[in-house]
Amino acid sequence: MQKRILSDEINGHIGKEVLLKGWLHKKRAMGGMTFVLLRDRRGVAQILVEDKSEADKLDGLQLGTVLEITGQAVEEPRAPLKVEIHEPKLTVLLPVTEVPPIEIDKPLGHKSENLDTLFEHRVLGVRNIQERKIFKIRSELNRYIREFMKENEFVEIQTPKILAGATEGGAEVFKFDYFGKEATLAQSPQFYKQIMVGAFERVFEIGPAFRAEPSTTSRHVSEITMLDMEMGFIESHEDVLKMTEKLLYYVLTKIYEEHKEELKSWNAPELVLKPEIPRYTVKELHQMYTKTTGINTIGEKDVRPEEERWICEYSKKENGCEAVFVTEFPIESMKFYHMVNPRDPSTVLWADLLFRGLEIATCPMREHRYEKLVEQMKSAGLDPEHPGYKYYLQAFKFGLPPHGGFGFGIDRLTEKIIGLGNVKEAILFPRDMNRLTP
Amino acid sequence: MQKRILSDEINGHIGKEVLLKGWLHKKRAMGGMTFVLLRDRRGVAQILVEDKSEADKLDGLQLGTVLEITGQAVEEPRAPLKVEIHEPKLTVLLPVTEVPPIEIDKPLGHKSENLDTLFEHRVLGVRNIQERKIFKIRSELNRYIREFMKENEFVEIQTPKILAGATEGGAEVFKFDYFGKEATLAQSPQFYKQIMVGAFERVFEIGPAFRAEPSTTSRHVSEITMLDMEMGFIESHEDVLKMTEKLLYYVLTKIYEEHKEELKSWNAPELVLKPEIPRYTVKELHQMYTKTTGINTIGEKDVRPEEERWICEYSKKENGCEAVFVTEFPIESMKFYHMVNPRDPSTVLWADLLFRGLEIATCPMREHRYEKLVEQMKSAGLDPEHPGYKYYLQAFKFGLPPHGGFGFGIDRLTEKIIGLGNVKEAILFPRDMNRLTP
Repeated sequence: MQKRILSDEINGHIGKEVLLKGWLHKKRAMGGMTFVLLRDRRGVAQILVEDKSEADKLDGLQLGTVLEITGQAVEEPRAPLKVEIHEPKLTVLLPVTEVPPIEIDKPLGHKSENLDTLFEHRVLGVRNIQERKIFKIRSELNRYIREFMKENEFVEIQTPKILAGATEGGAEVFKFDYFGKEATLAQSPQFYKQIMVGAFERVFEIGPAFRAEPSTTSRHVSEITMLDMEMGFIESHEDVLKMTEKLLYYVLTKIYEEHKEELKSWNAPELVLKPEIPRYTVKELHQMYTKTTGINTIGEKDVRPEEERWICEYSKKENGCEAVFVTEFPIESMKFYHMVNPRDPSTVLWADLLFRGLEIATCPMREHRYEKLVEQMKSAGLDPEHPGYKYYLQAFKFGLPPHGGFGFGIDRLTEKIIGLGNVKEAILFPRDMNRLTP
Repeated sequence: MQKRILSDEINGHIGKEVLLKGWLHKKRAMGGMTFVLLRDRRGVAQILVEDKSEADKLDGLQLGTVLEITGQAVEEPRAPLKVEIHEPKLTVLLPVTEVPPIEIDKPLGHKSENLDTLFEHRVLGVRNIQERKIFKIRSELNRYIREFMKENEFVEIQTPKILAGATEGGAEVFKFDYFGKEATLAQSPQFYKQIMVGAFERVFEIGPAFRAEPSTTSRHVSEITMLDMEMGFIESHEDVLKMTEKLLYYVLTKIYEEHKEELKSWNAPELVLKPEIPRYTVKELHQMYTKTTGINTIGEKDVRPEEERWICEYSKKENGCEAVFVTEFPIESMKFYHMVNPRDPSTVLWADLLFRGLEIATCPMREHRYEKLVEQMKSAGLDPEHPGYKYYLQAFKFGLPPHGGFGFGIDRLTEKIIGLGNVKEAILFPRDMNRLTP
């Protein structure tokens, strides 16, 4: 039996007979001849069908029909890969008789008003060559992240997504019946990654996290993919920020090196990044923004989305770096497991990493001292005896070193790398308030 | 500030002052001297404390206390790493004052009657050096799998765990309220990986899957980690089996090469594996088992656990291979998306991969023809218009090539590699009917 070759291998078989398999990607009749484009996982091959009885086999068949084609590989400077298949014999492996509801052979629209149609037809949309580049890049992004984590001695962990109770705050949690008990879906692996610092010092996880946010913005979905990292024996918050910027620089420069063509086809912006990411405190940001725009944000406890966009633009121009750390968040935004800034107790050792105007990671230092942690928990109105906390606290009682880490949104990072406008475009099958399918 | 070195780096600093950080792993007084073992992520360092005022710093402190130690690195043939720290200065970074509820400095018991205690104290148990080897091996297992998948051109995907409704059968599914609609937790990425064959031909995912099985055996948990693969344009079921055995051989030989010491310390069995895995049909297995044991299983629709153990033992002895494919399952065990065996319609193109007596993967071929699939769905009493099926079927209607894949249990594979007796021992924080914490 002849071995299948892939579309980008034809060049190595000029003058020989080859066997191709794939999907009917395009069909065009021109003066008695038919040009067929066949799509496979690597690309698209051009086939010239001159024999009418062969062309007739495609009569009534639609794009997406699965074909097997044997023929002669011939040099042809005008063909996409400078090579064409002549004298083909076609076998229809699987006929498609209905017209597909979306275009498969040209880029799909990503205008915000069309997004719902895009997601509704995602099952076929992912076959679109332009569309699948997003998910190829996303796949590689994950791979580069893992390379970096391995290189820096982080152990990959897999922690439970079914939890005993709402732990990080009651709202925005999916609840369900678990053999007669109430269980919730993990909003993050926060507690588990901290616990695992006790075993490996450095751990990470890439996995799903669930947020019951009744929100339909372009930044929120109810199922996200998170990269979570945690590292122990840090000297200070600085170590966390250093590791974060090293990761970002490694991963982004690699993506831009390895996926030039795909990024270009998406009109992705040029990468403007430095190994050291500029830092601004929340206070500084409010002051700079207020001074420049005249809109007064001084004293605000959070950073406005328009400030996030502004500071990234600013830093791109002034520092040659479109990523920015915003540091020293006001104490009001603190979670009980964060560490208060010892130099300024009105702030917390928490930084946000912004990239191209969007928060893509939060990078806090944790409170690792048992008594202090219990105290902070009580101040936040939480019960240290709750089963969701009891085990967590055990890790501290029996010795956890100073540590910190980050939560990185893989969806948002993919969105921003490619220059998409909505986080859902970077997710294969997004979930939000209104969308639970496909 | 002096830079921390790790326990296995001391050898490179003989005669110099070093800074170590870690956990108090053991403390032993001997004739006026105190030996301290300090644990870090790489191993354990031995420190000789002769100065009483330094030793006194540890008075009343328990194992797990977080320490910083500076001292002279000195050659010492009797010490574990042939090196010892002399004239140390100790700093207590974080005191532990309560006696830990489990042993951290010696291997924990893994007897079946102690397992509940093991999981109850897992937060501290993972710090145990012997215990953490399990999860280091598991982490590396994932890495080798990804290496193999990349090498074979599989694209990693991340598919939703929140689904619109029970799809693969109604029972054993966790259900919850999703903004007023009923949602379920994914039992597997089955439909999505098949859908994604339409985009990439070859895809895989490593992620959680949820099974509401009211079962407390040593083989079942309600949250598992699955490696799911799917490949398109296969010639026959054979291609799926070939890819499965290639993966198993690659990953296992690599694990056994790279983790000799850890596996030895767990008394893991020697690996007895061949690149080509022996195959037996269900019928053959029943006949062989019946003939040998006198227990009549002929005609049974499923394979008994004791048959699984027997055939692996048999194959280990007779074929030099402790992995086995059991093929051609009776049609009764078929799911609607499986392909009926064209050579024998009383069986289905489904193989189980057994390793060391346990099913660790199922490797079926799928029915890819739309009309046939709808027909099989209806025969199974399912409604093709259900939102859980509607989108799935779209992928077939608009052209999916012949395909097949596998679902590999990462937990079970880890269990069997190390030679543990219960799948839960291979999971960081296992979930079953009775256990929802830690």
